[in-house]
Amino acid sequence: MNIMPEQLEMITEQFKTLKDRSPFYAKKFDGIDLAAIKTQEEFETLPFTDKGDLREAYPLGLTAVPMEKIVRIHSSSGTTGTPVIVPYTKKDVEDWAVQFARCYEYAGVTPADRVQITPGYGLWTAGIGFQAGAELLGAMAVPMGPGNTEKQIQFMMDMETTVLTATASYALLLAEEIEKRGIQDKIKLKKLITGSERAGEKIRNRIIEALGVEYYDIYGLTEVYGPGIGISCQHSHGMHVWSDYVYLEIIDPDTGKVLPDGEWGEIVLTTLQKEGAPLIRFRTHDLSRIIPGECACGHNEHPRIDTITGRSDDMMKIHGVNVFPAQIEEILATFPELSSEYQIRLSHLDGRDTMRIYVETNGSVDWEDLRKRVASSVKAKIGFTPLVKIVELGLLPRSEKKTKRVFDERYD
Amino acid sequence: MNIMPEQLEMITEQFKTLKDRSPFYAKKFDGIDLAAIKTQEEFETLPFTDKGDLREAYPLGLTAVPMEKIVRIHSSSGTTGTPVIVPYTKKDVEDWAVQFARCYEYAGVTPADRVQITPGYGLWTAGIGFQAGAELLGAMAVPMGPGNTEKQIQFMMDMETTVLTATASYALLLAEEIEKRGIQDKIKLKKLITGSERAGEKIRNRIIEALGVEYYDIYGLTEVYGPGIGISCQHSHGMHVWSDYVYLEIIDPDTGKVLPDGEWGEIVLTTLQKEGAPLIRFRTHDLSRIIPGECACGHNEHPRIDTITGRSDDMMKIHGVNVFPAQIEEILATFPELSSEYQIRLSHLDGRDTMRIYVETNGSVDWEDLRKRVASSVKAKIGFTPLVKIVELGLLPRSEKKTKRVFDERYD
Ligand SMILES: [Zn+2]
Ligand SMILES: [Zn+2]
Repeated sequence: MNIMPEQLEMITEQFKTLKDRSPFYAKKFDGIDLAAIKTQEEFETLPFTDKGDLREAYPLGLTAVPMEKIVRIHSSSGTTGTPVIVPYTKKDVEDWAVQFARCYEYAGVTPADRVQITPGYGLWTAGIGFQAGAELLGAMAVPMGPGNTEKQIQFMMDMETTVLTATASYALLLAEEIEKRGIQDKIKLKKLITGSERAGEKIRNRIIEALGVEYYDIYGLTEVYGPGIGISCQHSHGMHVWSDYVYLEIIDPDTGKVLPDGEWGEIVLTTLQKEGAPLIRFRTHDLSRIIPGECACGHNEHPRIDTITGRSDDMMKIHGVNVFPAQIEEILATFPELSSEYQIRLSHLDGRDTMRIYVETNGSVDWEDLRKRVASSVKAKIGFTPLVKIVELGLLPRSEKKTKRVFDERYD
Repeated sequence: MNIMPEQLEMITEQFKTLKDRSPFYAKKFDGIDLAAIKTQEEFETLPFTDKGDLREAYPLGLTAVPMEKIVRIHSSSGTTGTPVIVPYTKKDVEDWAVQFARCYEYAGVTPADRVQITPGYGLWTAGIGFQAGAELLGAMAVPMGPGNTEKQIQFMMDMETTVLTATASYALLLAEEIEKRGIQDKIKLKKLITGSERAGEKIRNRIIEALGVEYYDIYGLTEVYGPGIGISCQHSHGMHVWSDYVYLEIIDPDTGKVLPDGEWGEIVLTTLQKEGAPLIRFRTHDLSRIIPGECACGHNEHPRIDTITGRSDDMMKIHGVNVFPAQIEEILATFPELSSEYQIRLSHLDGRDTMRIYVETNGSVDWEDLRKRVASSVKAKIGFTPLVKIVELGLLPRSEKKTKRVFDERYD
C-alpha cells in the first residue's frame, strides 16, 4: 500500500525534531540523516524497532518529551523478563480516547448504549481504553473489570447492557452461562466488541448464536496506545486501522521486505501523532494482510487488515517458502467436509523438510480422494506438496484456551 | 456552621428543577414546596436522604438527567444486599477530577511528581479517581491497582514514585516490606495520600517513620463522587472539604439536629453541582466534627472536618448523652502513661447503664491515682463518671485489621 501524502508529511515533520526529543531514536538512528527521508522508498530503508529495543529502554527510556509532560504510563504484561513501559502525554491519552470513540462509532454504538467493560484495569491498557472511548462517545460505561461472572450477569440484566466488551473466551463463557440459565430474554445485548485474542470462526458463531449480537473485532497493542487503533465495521471484512494515527506496513518477517497488499506478513506500525513514545517501524509480530480493494462501508481512508491469524514467530520456512498457519487454515476452510481442527507438524526426514497436515473428517467421504485434493490445493496455493493425514472426527486435541496447532520437530 | 450565600444560591437554584428532573426527589419531597426554601433554617427542615433510600432506587432510580447523558456508573461495594448505583454525567466525571486535582495540589503534588495508584478500579471509585486527578494535574499516574506487592515495590523503585496512594493498611504493609528489605535508599517517596479507612496515630507514625513521607488523609464516598471531595493540608489538622461542590452539616445522629461547630456528630452532605445523581442532605454515617477557627494554610473557604473516627452506628447513648468512641479516645490520648489501646464495655447493672473503660499502662505509675484521673477527666468532658479498669500493657487484644473496641452488652 502506498503511503498517503498526509502520512508522509506527518512522518517527515516529526523527523525534524525526533532525534532531539528522543534519546532512544537518537541512538537507534545514529548515522542516519532523517531530514533526507522524503519518499516511501527512503522510509523503507529505516531499521525496524522491535520489542527487544523497547525492553532495553526500561524503565522510561522511550520518553520523547520532558518528563513532566508524562501523565500516565502503561506497561505490557511482561510475565517473563523486563516489561515494556509506555509513557503517555495528555494528548496521547486524549488521542487514544478519540480513536476508541471512533471504534465505537464504527460499531454503531451511540450515547443511548450501555457498555459493559470486562477487560482489566491498571497497567494493562484494555479496561481504561474501553471506558475512556465509551465516555467520550457519550455512551454509559459500566466499568466491571474482569471476573465475577455472577455479578457480570446481574449487572448485564439490571443495567440493561447493550454492548459487551470482552475477550472472545470470556464472551463465550458468559454466553454459555446465559444459555444455561435460560435468561436470554432478560439480556438486552446487541453488540460484542472483542479484542486481544484471535477467536476461531466456530467460537465466534457460537457466541453470535447464543447472544444474538453483532460481533466486532478491535485491534491495538500496548506499545501503540492500546486497543482501539482499528476495528471491524458492520461489513465484518477486516479491521479498519486509523490512518491519521498510524502508518501501516506488512512485511516479510524473514527478510523485512515490505509486501504488496493482499499478502500475509507481519504488521509494522509507525505512529503519526504520538508524543510520549513515538514509534517508527515498530514490528508488532502480529500476522495479517492488507485487504485490497474498497470496503462497502466507504471508509477507504482507513485501510483494512485481516483478522490477526497468529504471531510472526509462528512462521514456518519450508523449502525456502514462508508459510503461515493462517494460510493453511484458509485452504482447509475451503473443504466443508473437514472440521475446523488441524495440526501441522514439520520434520526433517531423509535430508529434507517435510510438512505433515493432520485434518479431521467423518466416515462418509472418500478419505484417499480427500487427502489428494487437500494436498494438491496446498501445492497450488503455496507451492509445495505436504503429507496430508486424515483422522477420525474428534481425534485432534482441543483446548478451551489457545490450542497449539503447529509443531516444528525439525531441530528437536 | 452557617451556609455560605453562594451555597444557598446553588441549592435554591437546583431546587427550581429538582423534582422535574429527579423522580427520586419528586417522591422523597412530595408535598414539600422546594421553592419556599430560602434560608438555612428552612433547608434544615428537609428530610434526610439515607443509604436505604438509595438502595431502593436500584438500579438507576437516582438518575436526574435523561439517561443518554449518563456516561458512567459506579457502585458502592454492596457485599451484602442491594448495591447503590451512582450515575455520572460528563460534567460529574470532570468535576470529580477537578476536585481530586485540587486534593493533590493541597498535598503539594506537582507535574514533576509520579503517583503510584494502588487502590482498585472498576465499579469501585478509588483507582480511577486517584488516576484522573493525577492526570488532570499533570503528574505521572502509575496505575498499578491493588495487590502484587513485589511488582509495587519494583515499580516504586524503577518509576521513582514520589507519591503513594493507598489505604493505610496497604501503606503499612509496603512500608514494612521496604524496611525488611533494607531498600529505603532506593525509594523516592515523599508523600502518602490515604483514604477509605481510619488509621490510628500509631500506624500513621509507623508509616511516616518507615517511609519518611508526609501523610495526607483524603475524604469522600461513592455516593458523592468518590474519594477526593476533601483532603488534609500541610498543617495536618483536619480535612478541607470543597465548599463549592458540597454543603456540609454535622448532625446529632439520634435527633437529626444540626450541631454547632466543634461538636462530634454525623456528616451530612448536600451536593451543589452534581447532575447525574444530586443528593440532598445525605447521611454519610461518618462521624466527625467541623474544626472551628482558621487553618494556617489560609484556605478558609473550605471548612475542615476532623479525622473520621467511626460510624454513627457506633454511637453510644448513655445516661441520655450521646457518646462516641472518638471522644473517649481523645481523652485517653491526653494521658501519656496510657497505651493507644482501649476497650469500652457498656452494661446494664442494678437498673442503670454503666460504662467500663479498659486501658493499659506499665507498672511504673500509680494505678489507683491514674484510674481516678481518667475517670474524672471523662466526667469533666462528657458529663458522667465511667468505671475505669487499668490492665497490664499488652493485655488488650490487637488486630491487623479493624480492632473492635466498643462492646454494648446492655441488651444481650
Ligand atoms: Zn468498512
Ligand atoms: Zn489548611
